[in-house]
Parts: sequence; C-alpha cells; structure tokens
Amino acid sequence: MPDIPLPFDRGEYAGRLAKVRAAMDAAEVDVLFCCDPSNMAWLTGYDGWSFYVHQGVLVGPEGDPIFWGRGMDANGALRTCYMAPGDIVGYADDLVMSNAAHPMQDLARLLRDRGWGKKRLGVEMENYYYSARAHAVLSAEHDGPLADATALVNWQRAVKSEAELSFMRRAARIVGEMHRCIRETMRPGLRKNELVAEIIRTGIMGSEDTDGPFGGDYPAIVPLLPTGLDATAAHLTWDDKPLQPGAGTFFEIAGCYRRYHAPLCRTVYLGTPPADMLAAEEAVLEGIDKGIDAARAGNTAGDVARAFYSVLERRGISREGRCGYPIGLSYPPDWGERTFSIRPSDETVLQPNMTFHFMPGLWMENWGLEITETLRVTETGPAECLADVPRNLVILD
Amino acid sequence: MPDIPLPFDRGEYAGRLAKVRAAMDAAEVDVLFCCDPSNMAWLTGYDGWSFYVHQGVLVGPEGDPIFWGRGMDANGALRTCYMAPGDIVGYADDLVMSNAAHPMQDLARLLRDRGWGKKRLGVEMENYYYSARAHAVLSAEHDGPLADATALVNWQRAVKSEAELSFMRRAARIVGEMHRCIRETMRPGLRKNELVAEIIRTGIMGSEDTDGPFGGDYPAIVPLLPTGLDATAAHLTWDDKPLQPGAGTFFEIAGCYRRYHAPLCRTVYLGTPPADMLAAEEAVLEGIDKGIDAARAGNTAGDVARAFYSVLERRGISREGRCGYPIGLSYPPDWGERTFSIRPSDETVLQPNMTFHFMPGLWMENWGLEITETLRVTETGPAECLADVPRNLVILD
Repeated sequence: MPDIPLPFDRGEYAGRLAKVRAAMDAAEVDVLFCCDPSNMAWLTGYDGWSFYVHQGVLVGPEGDPIFWGRGMDANGALRTCYMAPGDIVGYADDLVMSNAAHPMQDLARLLRDRGWGKKRLGVEMENYYYSARAHAVLSAEHDGPLADATALVNWQRAVKSEAELSFMRRAARIVGEMHRCIRETMRPGLRKNELVAEIIRTGIMGSEDTDGPFGGDYPAIVPLLPTGLDATAAHLTWDDKPLQPGAGTFFEIAGCYRRYHAPLCRTVYLGTPPADMLAAEEAVLEGIDKGIDAARAGNTAGDVARAFYSVLERRGISREGRCGYPIGLSYPPDWGERTFSIRPSDETVLQPNMTFHFMPGLWMENWGLEITETLRVTETGPAECLADVPRNLVILD
Repeated sequence: MPDIPLPFDRGEYAGRLAKVRAAMDAAEVDVLFCCDPSNMAWLTGYDGWSFYVHQGVLVGPEGDPIFWGRGMDANGALRTCYMAPGDIVGYADDLVMSNAAHPMQDLARLLRDRGWGKKRLGVEMENYYYSARAHAVLSAEHDGPLADATALVNWQRAVKSEAELSFMRRAARIVGEMHRCIRETMRPGLRKNELVAEIIRTGIMGSEDTDGPFGGDYPAIVPLLPTGLDATAAHLTWDDKPLQPGAGTFFEIAGCYRRYHAPLCRTVYLGTPPADMLAAEEAVLEGIDKGIDAARAGNTAGDVARAFYSVLERRGISREGRCGYPIGLSYPPDWGERTFSIRPSDETVLQPNMTFHFMPGLWMENWGLEITETLRVTETGPAECLADVPRNLVILD
C-alpha cells in the first residue's frame, strides 16, 4: 500500500466507496466513470490541475477505484492517491488534443481489459469535464449500455464527516481573515487589482487555530468584486482602475483549505449609502436570520428559501431564483456541489452536517448587495454559521 | 450603441466577426453557437466568471453576435459587450442546475425566435462548457442539423493583432516580475503556501511600461510548483509544508493582462543539483535555442519539435509528446488555445504573429525540470521571446 500523505484516513475513503457502490446498485450502474475532479478527489485523494485534459476515476463492482488519465498525470496520481500502482493507468500523450484519436478510445480499451466491456457504464452527462464529443466516442467504443449518472457521487458528498467539517472550519477562518483584509485595506484611490492582490495573498497565507498555523488553497472561483453599476451583475471580476467614493462593492469570496470551501460575501460602501440600499440591508439581515432559523434537520431547502423570501416580500423587495447551494470539496469552475438548491421549489430534506452557502444576494437596478453565510445543519436547532464575520454593510468614509 | 470600455476597438471586433463568418461559410455552418468563454470574449468583449452555468454567443448569417446566458449574467454582458441590449438575452434562474428543465431548451427557443430554427447549427463538441447532456437536449430541441464546429473560432485567434500583442507583452512583463519574486523570496523553511501567496500577489499587482503602471488579471491556471519527487508529475499545486534544501522545484506560472497570457516556467534548486539535472539543463537550453531558431514563418510546428528533440536525442535524454501549444486570450481551466500542438506529427505552418508557449518540460524518474518561453513568430528570422527572464536553472544555497 503506497505511503501517501492523504487528506483523510483510509477508513473514510472506504466508507465513501461503500456509499457510492450502494448508490450505483440503486441506479443499476455496474461500473461508474466519474470525471468531476471533486468526485475524483473525494473518492481517491487525487489532487492536481489536470482536469483540462480527459481523465477520470472508474469504480467497478469490487476492488479499489482506478485512476485513468494522461501519462504525466498518472505520475501525479501515484503521488496523491491511495491506490496501488496497478490501479493507476496513464494514456499516451499523442491522445492529448489530437484530431486523429480520442482518449475515450483508450478508456474503452481499459474497460475491456478489466472485463467490463459489456457492463452498464454510468457517466456524468452534465459535467464540465465530460464533453459532448467524449460521450459520442465512448458511446461508440463501449460495448455495453451507457447510463446517466450525473451527481450520483455528488449526492454522497452532501453530509460531511467530522474530518471534512474540520477542513471547512479552517476555510471559514481563512475567509474571515480575507474580509478583515478588505476592511483594513480598502480606500478610495486604491487600484482594484491592488486590493485583489492583498485579498488573495491573505487567503493563501492562511490562518491558525489551536493546532497551529495552516495554509490556504486556491478557491474554485476567483474574487468577484464589482462596484457601483457593475454590481448589478453577479459575476464580474476586476480591473486596475482606482476605487471611487460614492459606490458600493460586494465581495464574493471563499476561504479554501485542502480543496474545502467556505464562501462568504460582504458588501462595502465608500461614502454614504443610498437609503434604498440601507433598507435592503435591513431586509436581508432579517431574512438571513429567518433563513438560518429555518435551516433545521427535517426541514427542506424550500423552507429556508421561503423563510427568506417572506421577509423580502413583506418589505416590498422583489427577488427570485436560487438563494443558496451545497458546498464542500471543489475544483474550478464552481465551488457548489451541484445537487440541490435553496429555492422555494426544492423539497430536499436537510440532514445534520449538510453544509451550504446561504446566498441571498440582491442585484438591483443601480447597485448590488451580497451578505451571505456558510451554514452547517445541526442535530437540533438552527444552522451553525461556520465563519464569524460581522454581517452588516461596511461603510468606509 | 452602448458606451462600454472595450479592450479592443470596434473595428477589431468587426474584423474578427468577418473572419469567423468566412470560416463558417467554409465549414457550411449557418449559425454558430460558441460557449468557449475565450471565444465568447474574443467575439464580443464579454468578461465574467459565469461559465459554470450554460451560456454562449450565437453568430448568425448577419448582424451582431448575440449573448445568451443566465439572467444575472446578461446584466454582466450589458456591462462588458458592444452589442445593443436587444442582442443580449437572459434565461430564467429556474433553469440553473435544474432537473426539470434545461437551458438548452431556452436556446432552441431563441434560435426559432430569430428565424434560425431549421438552420445548420455549429456547436463546440469538444469543450469544457458544452456538456454531453447539453448536446443531447439541443439535438432534440433544434429542428435543423447540428455540426461539430470545435475550434472553428479558436483557429481564427491564432494570428494576433498588434493590440493583442501589446496585451501579451504586458503579461510577459508581469511573469518577469513573478519570477523575480521567486528568486528573491524562496528559501529553505519558508512554507510553500507563503511563497505562492507572494507570487500571486506580485502577478495581480502587475507591472509598468512606458504608458505607466498596469494591473494583473487572473491566469487560467493557478501556480504549479511541485518539489523533488512531486516534480516527476506535471500538474501538482501546493501544500503548507516548509521548503526543504536538497530538492528542485519547477514553477509553471503565467502573467495575465486583461485575459491575455504569457506563461513562462523556470526551475529552482535549493542546494547543489545532481549531475544528471545539470546535464539535462544544458540539453534543454541548447534545445530551446534550436527550437526558437526553427520557429520561423513558413516552418511547421513539427519543425520546432524536431529541432528540440534532435538535441535531446543526441544527448541521450528520452522524452516524447507535446512540447508546446498556442496561447493568448483564455479562461480556466486551460491557458492553451487548443488548435495545433508543437509535436513532431503536427504540420501546421507557422505564420507571423502566431504566439505559442514553447514548453519542453522534463518529468524524469526522480525530479522535474521546466524551462520554457512564450514566443511570437516574426516576419523573418527566429521567433521573439516576449519575456526577458534568465533561462538558467536557479541555484539558491
């Protein structure tokens, strides 16, 4: 057994594999191919920025998972996964971004080699790293049927272990440091890129807890921090212009520790905020309290959304859509887990140690306001906020 | 016409659109749907971290391109694209990560609305942001045929304009600052995450040229900097352990200015490097010189690879596969342009102002060595190195 410094102990990986096999049985999937890097890491420990080429983890009816990827990334799997070298399989570099051949031909060959050539193969149809062409080639090359197993593994990740929660608590400490950096650094005239440089630096420097200092990892999304009218849009990044007084800026950022995320958004106004933004702040703060109170084991995701929206409606603010999503282990381009959503129509029942980003951002006609929390569902009572950051609109004169 | 501070002038965007329409004609594509964020930005100016949901740009037979995306990201398109609001189309938030409906149903409706319901529609089959399920839904909903138009736009991006080159020269200055930061900061005992924090901070702080200071953007890949045995793998990121003497670390990083990249790798050894690494350094340095000399307009990508490999072979070092790829505008997860490759089998003819990352990294049994350059093909003579960073193995005692 390779001597690899894994993020979690072998027992935890064995438990994850058993949960996935039970879900495969329920879905009548014989062999699962997952290429979502978060699912790959959660199952095997694999960690590398190699998801821009085709790769994945195979879970068969028995034995360890199999890492399959580009030859040079199989070297990375040998350094980060718990499986024996015989279950780490590399393909030739000729197949990378080639028009002559496709890596999925190699994957089909591996499936045949393992005696799984005619098995019912689950694939992640809705995933960034499973392209339409990959599916077309694999469908043609695999002798058995293919089944859509999108989010099969993601759902097994919803309830976090104590070890995972300890990583997320570290991520939450990191995002607290990042927001402190914003409050201490932001001022009119500072170029926005300079502010971003300090925020990211702070996140990667990390923080400390009773076990000592720890470093930060890269979040799956870069800081989003639009100002003024740009904050009417949700996902703009930054430029190198000086910050101007008389405008609000929201900060959509996350702390990250060993790929586990704690997103947390706050909004800063340089100058005197308009009355409608202050009224919205009051509504959102009340709505967040109501949402946290509704985020109890046994309640549904929809209950949380309805609790929040009822406050907004009463105060005459119109908003619709998602206001949250599960989080934990992730890789770019999204830190969400892509299973349920916090929205009125979602009747997923909350369980203890589910974690989600409660994200009731407002993108209005002339400004944006984001105040959010990363929550853990507890055994009894309202959800726990993993981070400890003052929630109010920060006003810097 | 909206008053948007575009990265390039309207004439440049018009020229790009004309090139794409000519390529569409040649490929017998009536309407093109591109969801590669780099292609979207190159065609319209759109810039936002929203590619984790379905979105894209439509190019029809006439008129401006159409931005199509999530409602809140249509707001971002209004802030970053040159098109009139009528050509910026948002879909309902209910469609985001829903099991009940798919955004591609909305796209098919938009195609019908524009009178393109039965047109031959080009799609990017091999792209991170065009999932197997997206293709299945769009195939079922669109009344006309679908054609694979992977890389159709990417190929139009291969030869850079003077304005694009000025962005890449700024990116190259930034990567020079980042490597200076490494040489000045790295020392035994420093935790690796602390080094990463300073490298990224430096990249986003930016640099300056004769026009004054400019800020850095986020590169499409985070720093890769494996040490010792980890450097036998190509794509590992970092941890929070102190750097140890007696090992080599390569730095695969890029400067980025307004989404344009200049990747550049160097290797640092803390202590006294082993003889075989020094021999490999000598071979790689000679091979790079030979490759740069071969990277002339009229020669092929394969000529560059063969020039490099001939040196390695003569010196008894075995390596195979790609040793470079075109670069420029990009978004995560890859800074490559995904058209041709610098490898012996690739007979793409080099043209003036093509830019590529000449990347002859060595990942050996016990260590890794990466020394690379970002090159521009010139009108006559060998390629130009955009950055100015000493190429030797950096030895810190």
